[in-house]
Amino acid sequence: MAHFPNTKGFTDTLRPIRMECDILDLELEGGVPTQLSGTFHRVHPDAQFPPRFENDQFFNGDGMITLFRFRNGKIDLKQRYAQTDKFKVERKAGKSLFGMYRNPLTDDDSVKGMIRGTANTTPIVHAGKLFALKEDSPPLIMHPLTLETEGYSNFGGRMQNQTFSGHPKIDPITGNMCNFGYAAKGLLTRDVSYMEISPAGELLFETFFEVPYYCMMHDFGLTQDYAVFHIVPCTGNWERLKAGKPHFGFDTSLPVYLGVLPRHGTAKDIRWFKAPKTIFASHVMNAYNEGTKIYFDIPEAEGNCFPFFPDINDAPFDAKAARPFLKRWVVDMASKKDEFESITQLTTMIDEFPRIDERYMGLPYRHGWMLVMDPDKPFEGPGARASGFRMNNIGHIDIATGKTDAWYCGPQSIIQEPQFIPRHKGSGEGDGYIIALVDNLVTNYSDLCIFDALRLPEGPIGRAKLPFRMRSGLHGTWADESKLPKQ
Amino acid sequence: MAHFPNTKGFTDTLRPIRMECDILDLELEGGVPTQLSGTFHRVHPDAQFPPRFENDQFFNGDGMITLFRFRNGKIDLKQRYAQTDKFKVERKAGKSLFGMYRNPLTDDDSVKGMIRGTANTTPIVHAGKLFALKEDSPPLIMHPLTLETEGYSNFGGRMQNQTFSGHPKIDPITGNMCNFGYAAKGLLTRDVSYMEISPAGELLFETFFEVPYYCMMHDFGLTQDYAVFHIVPCTGNWERLKAGKPHFGFDTSLPVYLGVLPRHGTAKDIRWFKAPKTIFASHVMNAYNEGTKIYFDIPEAEGNCFPFFPDINDAPFDAKAARPFLKRWVVDMASKKDEFESITQLTTMIDEFPRIDERYMGLPYRHGWMLVMDPDKPFEGPGARASGFRMNNIGHIDIATGKTDAWYCGPQSIIQEPQFIPRHKGSGEGDGYIIALVDNLVTNYSDLCIFDALRLPEGPIGRAKLPFRMRSGLHGTWADESKLPKQ
Repeated sequence: MAHFPNTKGFTDTLRPIRMECDILDLELEGGVPTQLSGTFHRVHPDAQFPPRFENDQFFNGDGMITLFRFRNGKIDLKQRYAQTDKFKVERKAGKSLFGMYRNPLTDDDSVKGMIRGTANTTPIVHAGKLFALKEDSPPLIMHPLTLETEGYSNFGGRMQNQTFSGHPKIDPITGNMCNFGYAAKGLLTRDVSYMEISPAGELLFETFFEVPYYCMMHDFGLTQDYAVFHIVPCTGNWERLKAGKPHFGFDTSLPVYLGVLPRHGTAKDIRWFKAPKTIFASHVMNAYNEGTKIYFDIPEAEGNCFPFFPDINDAPFDAKAARPFLKRWVVDMASKKDEFESITQLTTMIDEFPRIDERYMGLPYRHGWMLVMDPDKPFEGPGARASGFRMNNIGHIDIATGKTDAWYCGPQSIIQEPQFIPRHKGSGEGDGYIIALVDNLVTNYSDLCIFDALRLPEGPIGRAKLPFRMRSGLHGTWADESKLPKQ
Repeated sequence: MAHFPNTKGFTDTLRPIRMECDILDLELEGGVPTQLSGTFHRVHPDAQFPPRFENDQFFNGDGMITLFRFRNGKIDLKQRYAQTDKFKVERKAGKSLFGMYRNPLTDDDSVKGMIRGTANTTPIVHAGKLFALKEDSPPLIMHPLTLETEGYSNFGGRMQNQTFSGHPKIDPITGNMCNFGYAAKGLLTRDVSYMEISPAGELLFETFFEVPYYCMMHDFGLTQDYAVFHIVPCTGNWERLKAGKPHFGFDTSLPVYLGVLPRHGTAKDIRWFKAPKTIFASHVMNAYNEGTKIYFDIPEAEGNCFPFFPDINDAPFDAKAARPFLKRWVVDMASKKDEFESITQLTTMIDEFPRIDERYMGLPYRHGWMLVMDPDKPFEGPGARASGFRMNNIGHIDIATGKTDAWYCGPQSIIQEPQFIPRHKGSGEGDGYIIALVDNLVTNYSDLCIFDALRLPEGPIGRAKLPFRMRSGLHGTWADESKLPKQ
């Protein structure tokens, strides 16, 4: 009796989909470059059952993983739920047992102590496995091609940390998967660990440290020598959970920090640089260091970007202050002062979901892509986006020149996070393709669009047409054929 | 490289879907009566690969079977291709090998002699198996609950006939599945066989006879004593196939007949009654006999209903003449004249896809339901329906009083064939539910709507909401829990 509530997270453009499906050889318009051989995995939250609380929010849905399998100019689609422990016990019960987003106090007694993860944030291939990630839990391991779930991993007992963020980064030099986990020693704790996992899947080391205060640490920056952590005051505590408030609330009284940990250092080596004012930032475009100087590029907003994690003092949500712009934060480990050296705005485009040519992860780089909101463009779709944002462009920035360009998806559509794919192994930075789901909110069809990455304004060179609209998702990753298990 | 042609059968509301999928516990609005326990199978044509000929038509698509599994007030959805021999050999090749609709002259040499069936017309449960049917082929056997394909059956070698129509009828008294096959001894032959299959799945007998001329025999009538065959001049011949014309063409120079075969008779017992003029008719609502007098209820049109099977002399399609109205044809086996006794119009509703309470199959009955086109109702959807029709009402007729009522689906939608389900085993005729897919052509979502069968105008009492629009289908059937294999 799946009666979903008539609330924001389950209606209009966020109506449930909950569909596992297969389509062989997706219908195409235009072409798919035949050399594109590999997988694009992405995920959206999609509650298996109606929530226990009708005001439950989007981010709490069970992870539905989509696999676009590219081969020989064809694309096959496969979509399956990540079978988390939560998913399995709820499927058996035929209803939700876990309660609100990151609030175990709202769970059914029968699931106390279980891992609450939904694996709904990022799927990424490493060491021949698909890591389906949610920042509050260990990695869930799935098969990259069949999407069958193996279960949670702690790297053969080597990972002491209880969590694994949704934004690991593959170091292009070592091939290590570098990641961190926050609330590493338990819910709401200030403990964080930084980890590196070898290309073979072995946890090489794990370093624990403490952050200035507990907050949402959704992403981080990786450079060749440092792991870099931005601390923004999207905070939580037991009082909030006991009161049934959202896990996170925005506290403008708290400072913003950038923490810098030498990649082979320990807690004593970390330095905390304080930002000149309280700001909001979430996804990192890229970071790199030149000696002791660290460059950290991130869309930054003056105020809270998340209306569903409201101000702790009930200040009204300020949609204008929530507009992020890509900025460059600079700090210097040789500096005597624990302050930012500079913050520079890189573009006037309102942008989020920044992506790069990941062969340049942690290295000096030139090209970035992101979702862009152009508020002056007309909108013909129904209702309003839950976030207040409508990402209607894919933007590109040439960091070297500051030049930007973009492709506009038209008045009926929104765009999901873009993904860069190199044209071939030896191609230069940015020489390749951007793929992104474009969701028409009127016809309720999605197309996976393929662009020449440096010629976005020319529009898609190919479209794989889906016979349904994909639910709004979080993140996706590309894995080249060489990274996949043999089928 | 699935590039579909930009032609009528593959664009607009007929764009390909090709999606195998599962949704557990469909999202509901309103309620599903908890006593509804069983399966609703339906099918639509959905070409696995782009056609070999771009003007190929809708009816030639591979059968995609949808299972709505009703249990405990919940409905699960499962959708799978019927894995016909054609489907399997084409999947292996990664492309279409079979050519135009019922024209083997257009096939790739590699598939010469193979069964060309698509299993895209009717799925029906009998003897614990799902029969996935297409009138040009033997029955394809599938599992009713897993939708796994076993393969074609000839009833253990007992069926000599090469075909099995998409409109078998379960005799409510004997439980036999009664059916016929035309072109029974080969493509375009005038041979027809009538068969009955026991509730255990055994072919009890098979009687061959010849029809006056080869034509599309899509359906038939069953009474307690007779099998009744309407012959309308939707004809075909080798010259058409050699010329690459559609298999069928409408020939207004040919007479229309009603053939009556005693159910345990042989070819010598059949009588052919001639209609007063040439008309078109396809789906039978019901038939019954009182002694030698036979009542045969069928939507009848003055002219050809199928624009895709055009007039053999290229007369333009006449949409007005194509409007069918439910009529009652009466013939008498005791009559000395080989003519109809009467034709009576039963309603002024433009109707097709007639259905009944199947506990009254072949028996005197009172209640009928059908799709109804009300041309005066507004339409806000895109493009035009391929057939020129837009079925925008479900209609009900009380045959005893002539009274009709209907439910209108609104200006954006169309409705697929309705299905009657008794409220419970002992309920009176018509006391039960109508279910039907309602497809919104603007939002591209379908709802499986549940109505009180005798209170259609009150609208759905429940809706199971699909996250996509179901492709327009042909036929469906309900199987009560008692007819299903144990899972």
